Amino acid sequence: MRYTNLFGKTVREPLKDMTQVSHKLLYQAGFIRESTAGRYYLLPLGQRVFDKIVRIVEEEMDKSGAQKMSAPILHPIELWEETNRDKSGGYELMTVQDRRGARFALGGTAEEMFVDVVRRFQLTYKDMPFNVYQMGYKFRDELRARGGLMRVREFIMKDAYSFHTDDQDFKKEYENMRDTYSRIFTRVGLKFDIVPADNGYFGGEYCHEFDVESEVGESKYFVSEDGSYIAHEDVAEFKLEDVNPEEEIKDMEIVEQPEWVRTMEDNIKNYNLPAERFLKNVVYKNRVDGHIYIVTIRGDLQVNKNKLEKLLNLVGLLDDATDEDIISIGSKPGWVHSWGYGDHKVTFVADNSLKTVKNFVGGQKEEKTDSINVNYGRDFKHEIEGDVALAQSGFTSPDGKSKLIEKKGIEVGNIFQLGQHYSKKMRDAVFVDSDGKSKEFFMGCYGIGLGRTMATIVEVSHDDKGIIWPDAVAPYQVHLLGLNLEDSEIRNKAEQAYKYLTEKGVEVLYDDREGINPGSKFADSDLIGIPWRVVVSKRTGDGVEIKKRGEEKSEIIELAEFQV
Amino acid sequence: MRYTNLFGKTVREPLKDMTQVSHKLLYQAGFIRESTAGRYYLLPLGQRVFDKIVRIVEEEMDKSGAQKMSAPILHPIELWEETNRDKSGGYELMTVQDRRGARFALGGTAEEMFVDVVRRFQLTYKDMPFNVYQMGYKFRDELRARGGLMRVREFIMKDAYSFHTDDQDFKKEYENMRDTYSRIFTRVGLKFDIVPADNGYFGGEYCHEFDVESEVGESKYFVSEDGSYIAHEDVAEFKLEDVNPEEEIKDMEIVEQPEWVRTMEDNIKNYNLPAERFLKNVVYKNRVDGHIYIVTIRGDLQVNKNKLEKLLNLVGLLDDATDEDIISIGSKPGWVHSWGYGDHKVTFVADNSLKTVKNFVGGQKEEKTDSINVNYGRDFKHEIEGDVALAQSGFTSPDGKSKLIEKKGIEVGNIFQLGQHYSKKMRDAVFVDSDGKSKEFFMGCYGIGLGRTMATIVEVSHDDKGIIWPDAVAPYQVHLLGLNLEDSEIRNKAEQAYKYLTEKGVEVLYDDREGINPGSKFADSDLIGIPWRVVVSKRTGDGVEIKKRGEEKSEIIELAEFQV
Repeated sequence: MRYTNLFGKTVREPLKDMTQVSHKLLYQAGFIRESTAGRYYLLPLGQRVFDKIVRIVEEEMDKSGAQKMSAPILHPIELWEETNRDKSGGYELMTVQDRRGARFALGGTAEEMFVDVVRRFQLTYKDMPFNVYQMGYKFRDELRARGGLMRVREFIMKDAYSFHTDDQDFKKEYENMRDTYSRIFTRVGLKFDIVPADNGYFGGEYCHEFDVESEVGESKYFVSEDGSYIAHEDVAEFKLEDVNPEEEIKDMEIVEQPEWVRTMEDNIKNYNLPAERFLKNVVYKNRVDGHIYIVTIRGDLQVNKNKLEKLLNLVGLLDDATDEDIISIGSKPGWVHSWGYGDHKVTFVADNSLKTVKNFVGGQKEEKTDSINVNYGRDFKHEIEGDVALAQSGFTSPDGKSKLIEKKGIEVGNIFQLGQHYSKKMRDAVFVDSDGKSKEFFMGCYGIGLGRTMATIVEVSHDDKGIIWPDAVAPYQVHLLGLNLEDSEIRNKAEQAYKYLTEKGVEVLYDDREGINPGSKFADSDLIGIPWRVVVSKRTGDGVEIKKRGEEKSEIIELAEFQV
Repeated sequence: MRYTNLFGKTVREPLKDMTQVSHKLLYQAGFIRESTAGRYYLLPLGQRVFDKIVRIVEEEMDKSGAQKMSAPILHPIELWEETNRDKSGGYELMTVQDRRGARFALGGTAEEMFVDVVRRFQLTYKDMPFNVYQMGYKFRDELRARGGLMRVREFIMKDAYSFHTDDQDFKKEYENMRDTYSRIFTRVGLKFDIVPADNGYFGGEYCHEFDVESEVGESKYFVSEDGSYIAHEDVAEFKLEDVNPEEEIKDMEIVEQPEWVRTMEDNIKNYNLPAERFLKNVVYKNRVDGHIYIVTIRGDLQVNKNKLEKLLNLVGLLDDATDEDIISIGSKPGWVHSWGYGDHKVTFVADNSLKTVKNFVGGQKEEKTDSINVNYGRDFKHEIEGDVALAQSGFTSPDGKSKLIEKKGIEVGNIFQLGQHYSKKMRDAVFVDSDGKSKEFFMGCYGIGLGRTMATIVEVSHDDKGIIWPDAVAPYQVHLLGLNLEDSEIRNKAEQAYKYLTEKGVEVLYDDREGINPGSKFADSDLIGIPWRVVVSKRTGDGVEIKKRGEEKSEIIELAEFQV
């Protein structure tokens, strides 16, 4: 491709609102343009990278035994009503009506669509298992789009759905997909962690994220120093040591306290005790029915809302309570108690950490009094108990042998066990088993964000001059620069080199511009990030100067000796 | 691929409402399933054919110098407002609103989107020409979807847009695309006509359809018997001979006529004259401003509304007038005059055919009287004159040397000159020319309906047993049938054959089912239509029986001798 013919040229400066490296570089190097916020054009250079990623994904998926197919973009809303996901807050669902009045969802995921096509075939156990995937457009009505291709409102996902007679058969495919994804991300040049995560919106019992460690990642997860443990913050566990096992249990008392004691910091100062010795109450509300939940937790810990929602089986449904909500149960913002409110409909939840402390301070703190020597199980006990605490760096890993380290990662893929979550909600989602009985099938689903993968590669593979594309996904293999092409002798040599390489089947971007100084051509080449730079100039005589992007060394060789 | 693993199996009977062969066969053979009317799943077999068509299109487009890229699916409605196409009746536009209130079109075509991305670059003449294409989802809110993949509400189109400094440069690319399309359709196994057609909704001055002749086609076009002329019915011309050149021009008279004379047939009977001797008036209304148009034409001819709209520069805007419309201008349905209605806003249009007849009958026919010896130019003359008549089989071709033959074709592709139609309507759609001046660019656009191409291949390549896929687009090259696989010896040989072929890189669908009789396996094989059938059975001994789909001859050979 001659650069003069290429649609989409480089620009020197990013736009003002661009904060992420991948956004800036993909824009400046001419790979993407924004249409409206969160909706992008892929320019020809970007499309070439994208298509290479797609080809790798398809090759590996096909090798795994999965079958490519495709579903319509507009999903009949009736299908989303079957699973109740038309009302779920997980992803913001856009809908559209046609002129006959039929309503459709612009889906952010396509479980319902695939169950719907599968259930049209009267499947028997002989037809299973199978795994079908598509390169499917996805829509998410995000309030804020940010970071170029990182968090968008419209994108192409490789989404796969597998169907099984039982959970054991499913587990084999889950491992198969785990291996397939590992091969895919390795081939596109990414290092990744496979992180057990929260399945939330998708239903099912467990899932894993494929996370690429990066400061701009939105996934937070923990690994143990000894490498034996890894988990997303929404499911990460940790071992809680008893705080004061030697202490004697004392009688609960109501004591006076100075009026300046209001916050946790005040408490610590007043009692000269660490935060873990105090009780803390956090209030949530069910978005749909308005029910209030008070979570009591050790003072040094935070509540993880996802853990809480999972414990309560209210995935995606809890909001932080407002001051009005707190007043509505007869309480006071800042002074919520760990018990009481009997006349109001409140559900109390206890974090497991309450069992690690003797003689808590707090629980029914008022403006002038406080309770001390409060003991969980003796002085109060909640109807629901569980682990709802957020892990933190430095906490002990669950096996007690190591410490947790916090990491941030970009989620480029995920694999989900779905079990019978969808087949039980949707009618006729069954197969005939070998015993002649009709049974709901077991499912898994598996996603890769293709544009996000592309941006992630840039996040982890660049320098201050531009992108450094891994060979497997580079838009071209060779960036041929002709310097001072006004000189007809150089022009001839450059043209010959272009012809030679192209005819050998090498993918070449040829900077054939005249009247552009060498410095600008080098800068563009570094910005675009094609693996090999091949220069033809006065200096190179009958040879060419080759240099690998990201390395310093260059050398002049015969073109015939050049191997990509 | 083992048939037992394949998702999407054959079924014996089509559904009741299926009328077209391609719809029935693609359904029965397990290539497609309908989601809702006009929106289809491609099952794995269908996806393989589709992807092969896509690859051929991409290869040829790339070879032509075009560059693949992609635009978002949701188009900002503001862009459609710039060209006024948000209100045009051409394709029914669906719109959707996001939760921040932004409105988007689900476009049926993407000219505005491509102009919008191109105008963001400050292009100069040095950056042009270029041609960019995408595999883009298209949406059309058709009132009636029909015929499987033939007329759908959602589909993938290869749409390309080229940008040029002037019309001459554009014409080179138009020829380039014409050649590229010819190569594409030839490679996928289609015979086609390149038909000058009406550019209607797209603007611009001329265009060509690529039509595959078929009884189920919705495009009507004419070719001359000597092969020198071809044109779509909306632009087809023909030579009108003078009907009665020898006759003397007589004085116009009002004559009495029997009351039973009402229709054209009555006229012919009453006057004993052929239909061409009578004046006919046809009434239309502008959908937007309500203005009435009366077209006067020779009695043996029909008005072609597309020709009329083009003549009036009212593309897509005329409706047939209703009885109320006709009454509203002071006329009477069935008795519309060729002149008069002076108090009402009516525009008269004369078809060129009025100049070929002396002494017309009609023009102000009433219940009991009629006018005769009416001569166009002497007794009445219309403000607008032109060719608005529909061509018919048997008419003389425009050069007067041959006769027209009517054909029906499926439009699988089209190429459009757009000129400056879009660049003049959209702001900043300019480049800086070599003289330093800013000029609006010249454009062309080029579409191929990929799903329709797939269905068209089936329409023209099948027999009463099923599909006959051309090699280039077949889902697999070989359909390996193992007969009576319960017999472990046959099973072993079939498995070996599958392994052997697969390892040689042949794409094989392997019917590995047990307990299915040979007749059913043969029937499925004919239905699916893979080019080579390779049978392993008791009869084939150490060889295999090979047969090409669509041919009668089969032979038993050593598998090692088999060449795809």
